[in-house]
Amino acid sequence: MRRVTGIVGATGAVGQEFLQVLAERRFPVGELRLFASPRSAGQRVAFEGQEHEVEPLDERRLGECQVAFFSAGASVSKEWAPRAAARGAVVVDNSSAFRLDPEVPLVVPEVNPDAIPARAGVIIANPNCTTILLAVVLEPIRKLAGLERVVVATYQAASGAGAQAMQELEDQTRALLAGQPEPAPRKLPQPIAFNLFPQVDVFLPDAGDFTKEEMKVVWETRKIMGLPDLKVVSTCVRVPVRRAHSEAVFLELERDVTVDAVRAALGVAPGVEVVDDPATARYPTPRQADGRDPVLVGRLRRDPTVERGLCLFLAGDQLRKGAALNAVQIAEHVVRRG
Amino acid sequence: MRRVTGIVGATGAVGQEFLQVLAERRFPVGELRLFASPRSAGQRVAFEGQEHEVEPLDERRLGECQVAFFSAGASVSKEWAPRAAARGAVVVDNSSAFRLDPEVPLVVPEVNPDAIPARAGVIIANPNCTTILLAVVLEPIRKLAGLERVVVATYQAASGAGAQAMQELEDQTRALLAGQPEPAPRKLPQPIAFNLFPQVDVFLPDAGDFTKEEMKVVWETRKIMGLPDLKVVSTCVRVPVRRAHSEAVFLELERDVTVDAVRAALGVAPGVEVVDDPATARYPTPRQADGRDPVLVGRLRRDPTVERGLCLFLAGDQLRKGAALNAVQIAEHVVRRG
Repeated sequence: MRRVTGIVGATGAVGQEFLQVLAERRFPVGELRLFASPRSAGQRVAFEGQEHEVEPLDERRLGECQVAFFSAGASVSKEWAPRAAARGAVVVDNSSAFRLDPEVPLVVPEVNPDAIPARAGVIIANPNCTTILLAVVLEPIRKLAGLERVVVATYQAASGAGAQAMQELEDQTRALLAGQPEPAPRKLPQPIAFNLFPQVDVFLPDAGDFTKEEMKVVWETRKIMGLPDLKVVSTCVRVPVRRAHSEAVFLELERDVTVDAVRAALGVAPGVEVVDDPATARYPTPRQADGRDPVLVGRLRRDPTVERGLCLFLAGDQLRKGAALNAVQIAEHVVRRG
Repeated sequence: MRRVTGIVGATGAVGQEFLQVLAERRFPVGELRLFASPRSAGQRVAFEGQEHEVEPLDERRLGECQVAFFSAGASVSKEWAPRAAARGAVVVDNSSAFRLDPEVPLVVPEVNPDAIPARAGVIIANPNCTTILLAVVLEPIRKLAGLERVVVATYQAASGAGAQAMQELEDQTRALLAGQPEPAPRKLPQPIAFNLFPQVDVFLPDAGDFTKEEMKVVWETRKIMGLPDLKVVSTCVRVPVRRAHSEAVFLELERDVTVDAVRAALGVAPGVEVVDDPATARYPTPRQADGRDPVLVGRLRRDPTVERGLCLFLAGDQLRKGAALNAVQIAEHVVRRG
């Protein structure tokens, strides 16, 4: 069988990262088909030394892909992913369209690889970036000590809102430093240069005025970890950082364990790198995580204000493990089985 | 009696803000004496249209001040504040030197104005900036519903580490945007441009690997609020913002109250401005708080993961309410009584 791999949304920030990660990991791409909106169709994109022309979405061309990565927003996924899957493609969808659909698995390969179906013609959802980074770190702690409650405050990079938001951060910062009028926010809801704001995605009045991002962290963490009653609460904040998300996490565990035991469990966990040495001021930072695969975790310490409390801080590349890398890892499981 | 007002550390970021706030609030300054390290002595600083020469520290000259504001670091305060107080000055000390001294009141005028002594020749400590902003918001909530546990993740501006750190943020950002080599961190422990890091102040191995800033939030909040057993835990993070701190706060209250009741209590509380309308995407941001007096609070919502849980987000100017303004407010109480 001739292998064909598709990328929908090839010209976006995540789409570009897909190409990077596929090349680095020597994914068996076969024939590469790049799709985008009619606006971007016709653009040429390089992959492994070859130019590829971006084509408009087409059901037959999409359906011929063994694996089709989607990262063009929820409305494109809703329309095109079922059509691609109906023709036999395995769709790995980076949008939020199907994440909470009970028929669609939501996968972080370090956490629930067994949820990946062994058959073709399916949609597999790639979780929200903040949630992926959190789940990778929570899973080894859950195995060790169980989880009762998870409190998260996030520090989310501009990349999470796409390439245009990254440009907005740069343009606004440049203008402020030059003492020039700052370009108005277009992609983000507030100015981001030397600023931050507690709004990621829209507000959900029916969910107690949490934002959609905050509820994604709740709903998706529960689904990925198979813990439908896990207590999760978050405040999600956009910060003037380029492409790695950070999270301050306060946990309540089910069983009493030492901080050293947690550190040891994280030290051998897949996808995690412990960066935790107060004596030499080593801890995760987004610039350290930038462009790297593992989720960095540190600042591990007992929370003395609650029984079995644990504090930690993590940072991970939003475009890699938070999006493209996780999706490619899912696809690797698929092609290994297929 | 001839009124004399002193500022120790007049050339620093907080010292400059003292001058600004004293002028704005028409504080009865009388004769103004500016003190600084021998390195800065001789510099000329403008106040209300007049140039003042910065003088080296001198016990007699300091002791003649009715009020002496100190903001030159803990070691200068330790040496000079007791000598100034012994000669009759009321020292309002912005350093950490005496904050936890049981003999020294630690004051946020909106919270514990009665702790301000009615006599001269005393030291009054101005709390840590993060703690001041938090306490101003916690106090009306405590009055309404009691506090059981306070969980805080901070987003702290460069200004908290002084004028040099603000310059570092600007210089590094400028270099990165120009594609030039980034100046190495000098004042801050990590690069701050498009970055953040979970270290403010030094690590305290004897306090469970929390940082000194994180423990200041614990110890000082308890002392200011007169709640020695209050459960407080924090992760303190430096962010690439100029001069306003933000905090994501997760509270457990003693009594059941509605979010509307909390919003109403905050709405009439001194020093607080409620900015909380999800429908129009209104919430506190550091750039909104920049240069303003009140602590902005918003994102008020029930935390469904715990009984009587409440989430909120606040932002306040670190140099104003977080430092100079709070100190001047203390001094206003002193001169009103004296």
